[in-house]
Amino acid sequence: MSKSKRVELPVLEPEENAVPCCPPITAGELSVRDAERMAVMFKALSDPVRLRLFSRVASHPGGEACVCDIQDVGVSQPTVSHHLKKLREAGLLTSDRRGTWVYYRVAPSVVAAMSAMLDLRTTT
Amino acid sequence: MSKSKRVELPVLEPEENAVPCCPPITAGELSVRDAERMAVMFKALSDPVRLRLFSRVASHPGGEACVCDIQDVGVSQPTVSHHLKKLREAGLLTSDRRGTWVYYRVAPSVVAAMSAMLDLRTTT
Repeated sequence: MSKSKRVELPVLEPEENAVPCCPPITAGELSVRDAERMAVMFKALSDPVRLRLFSRVASHPGGEACVCDIQDVGVSQPTVSHHLKKLREAGLLTSDRRGTWVYYRVAPSVVAAMSAMLDLRTTT
Repeated sequence: MSKSKRVELPVLEPEENAVPCCPPITAGELSVRDAERMAVMFKALSDPVRLRLFSRVASHPGGEACVCDIQDVGVSQPTVSHHLKKLREAGLLTSDRRGTWVYYRVAPSVVAAMSAMLDLRTTT
């Protein structure tokens, strides 16, 4: 490392760190590593309540939803929090605490990567 | 039941029975029923080995693969069979036994429905 003057580097948002994965499923076999990454994302959507919460965030006006807007899905508030945490950990949602509430948004590049991977039109 | 002459009805392929589901995730909240259906499909892709087998079928020349072509994924043959059964039960693969081997194909309308549901471009 040189001792030259420090350069300010842009702060990357989590969204930008997530390298979109993967090629379309018809293009070739998924690598072990890519399969492990994608399986985590699909697992996040493998629960009906989680899927409903995800659709509530995605379809909320402005693309952002407060927990208070979406928690009425027939399960307890701690269960809602648990599901939202799983979606966040899988990279499908981003969150932002403002005052009392946490606001959620869909992470577009991650969801687009899942969609593109299953898009059979691209190579068939 | 009347005793009138029998009428031959067309045999539906499993693919035709599967009503594609659902609207894009950004279009509105998923119904409980649609969420339950889609969760089964996403669950089928939530395992890395299953995902690799699925990509091997999807990318195989001619869009069809014999178990013998794809089973080399580092797990036992019964485990491969178990995973392929899960993919078939979820509607993502169709199968056809010919002689000694079972051949698998991707069910395009089901996979396209999953892709379309996650396609954020359609309404944003």
